[in-house]
Amino acid sequence: MNEADFITALRGLASNPAARGLEDDAAVIELSGETLVLTHDTMVDGVHVLEGQDPADIAWKLVAVNLSDLAAKGAEPVGVLLSHMLGTDDHRFVTGLGEVLEDYNVPLLGGDTVRGEGPRVWGCTAIGRATHTPVPSRGGAKVGDAIYVSGTLGAAMLGFEALRDGVEADSTPYRRPAPLLEEGRLLAPHVSAMMDISDGLLLDCWRMATASEFVAFELESAAIPVADEARRGECIRWGDDYQLLFTAPENTKLSVAATRIGTVTNADFAPLWLDGEVLTPEHGLGYQH
Amino acid sequence: MNEADFITALRGLASNPAARGLEDDAAVIELSGETLVLTHDTMVDGVHVLEGQDPADIAWKLVAVNLSDLAAKGAEPVGVLLSHMLGTDDHRFVTGLGEVLEDYNVPLLGGDTVRGEGPRVWGCTAIGRATHTPVPSRGGAKVGDAIYVSGTLGAAMLGFEALRDGVEADSTPYRRPAPLLEEGRLLAPHVSAMMDISDGLLLDCWRMATASEFVAFELESAAIPVADEARRGECIRWGDDYQLLFTAPENTKLSVAATRIGTVTNADFAPLWLDGEVLTPEHGLGYQH
Repeated sequence: MNEADFITALRGLASNPAARGLEDDAAVIELSGETLVLTHDTMVDGVHVLEGQDPADIAWKLVAVNLSDLAAKGAEPVGVLLSHMLGTDDHRFVTGLGEVLEDYNVPLLGGDTVRGEGPRVWGCTAIGRATHTPVPSRGGAKVGDAIYVSGTLGAAMLGFEALRDGVEADSTPYRRPAPLLEEGRLLAPHVSAMMDISDGLLLDCWRMATASEFVAFELESAAIPVADEARRGECIRWGDDYQLLFTAPENTKLSVAATRIGTVTNADFAPLWLDGEVLTPEHGLGYQH
Repeated sequence: MNEADFITALRGLASNPAARGLEDDAAVIELSGETLVLTHDTMVDGVHVLEGQDPADIAWKLVAVNLSDLAAKGAEPVGVLLSHMLGTDDHRFVTGLGEVLEDYNVPLLGGDTVRGEGPRVWGCTAIGRATHTPVPSRGGAKVGDAIYVSGTLGAAMLGFEALRDGVEADSTPYRRPAPLLEEGRLLAPHVSAMMDISDGLLLDCWRMATASEFVAFELESAAIPVADEARRGECIRWGDDYQLLFTAPENTKLSVAATRIGTVTNADFAPLWLDGEVLTPEHGLGYQH
């Protein structure tokens, strides 16, 4: 059973029509007039972070990627719960955790610590409160909408390489991604669909297009802001940038800096186009966990 | 840095006075008039479950132990998020997950799936809604209160041994613990302190006594209901039974079957007494993760 089949099986559990959060960035639930957003991300040493990476950066990233999921929903954080596998360098983990929680003013609500052999595994659950309803989802893109991305793509890739190779370049974008909470809140009332880019722009565009109904994403390669012009193709396939990808009706006034990179069309027999060519996951669109 | 130091360090994070849920069974937060209860437990293959155990039972236990934390708070489940490390037998995991979610009528809200080498790790976050405030905590036991436990202790120990040794005895109490959600809801308005017994009665009594202020728990060994009279000492130290431990003023009318096992006194220079003898964690009170 592969991951897709596993998720399909979970969704098929009779009593659980709500298992939407497994495929979207986060789960959205209504509770006495409040709309809550819940998300959980797990990280494995050597898979989601470089083996031997500073645990302070691991703690930062663990919390940041979950806050990024809240950002994509326009939600403000209520708190986080952590799952931590004890190691030899836990004081560094505590340091990085303190930094990310303080920078984003997020309370640590609880969690669990365990011992285990083998590669270390960390988990984080973030709970947030939606600031705008309906809460943006992946699935709302409409024909005629413009497609936007915040920031620049590929910065995390360059940071990863700098860290891996020990060269003198800024590895911060890889080690300490910045969840765009404020941007997400400002955008939520105006977007038709939104998600954070965790696995590569092309892959996440493909996901957004297929989650939306009867639409295609037509992207213009040259319009996409990248950190390294000479490696454009890699920049738009590499993950970890945690920029926001969103669609909005033409001429929507945006209060957040973003770049228009394409248009939602009705060419729905193929969900993703780049410079007029059809792209499919077989082309290698991004990082598949 | 050991686990206790790690948790102390987390609690010391300047911006996070709320990190109570790391030491209590669960975190309690107020959100627009609703009191939410959040808990996260992580399980490691070979540590929290027997290596090679049926993934259906692992899924059951993963969800059940989190629901048990909600039960100890008198909370009703709102839903769960899962973290699942993919393996070769995921269809069994899905089966057991479906069973526990259906039996307790709990929606699956979302989660994450990851790949990893080494022993598999699973996580579950449960969110619940308190049915009574103030929400019971570990720390409310008062001098003069009676100490109670639900059910029988040691059944999980016998079940574990049956499963490990392949003998013909009922392993259900170990494989599929039953979270006492209904009992917790009925008890919440009447108890002064409550928790679920996950790591052994004596250890959890010690935790409850030290979390409460200036009290001691004086237990009467013969009064404690055990599954194997000949192994009383083991039964009251073995975890995994997920019975409810609680204190209540003398003569409180309880609508849940429970056994009185002792009295809260002011002999606070030692928090735990068994048949008139002081017990400390050095005596081996239970399972330390």
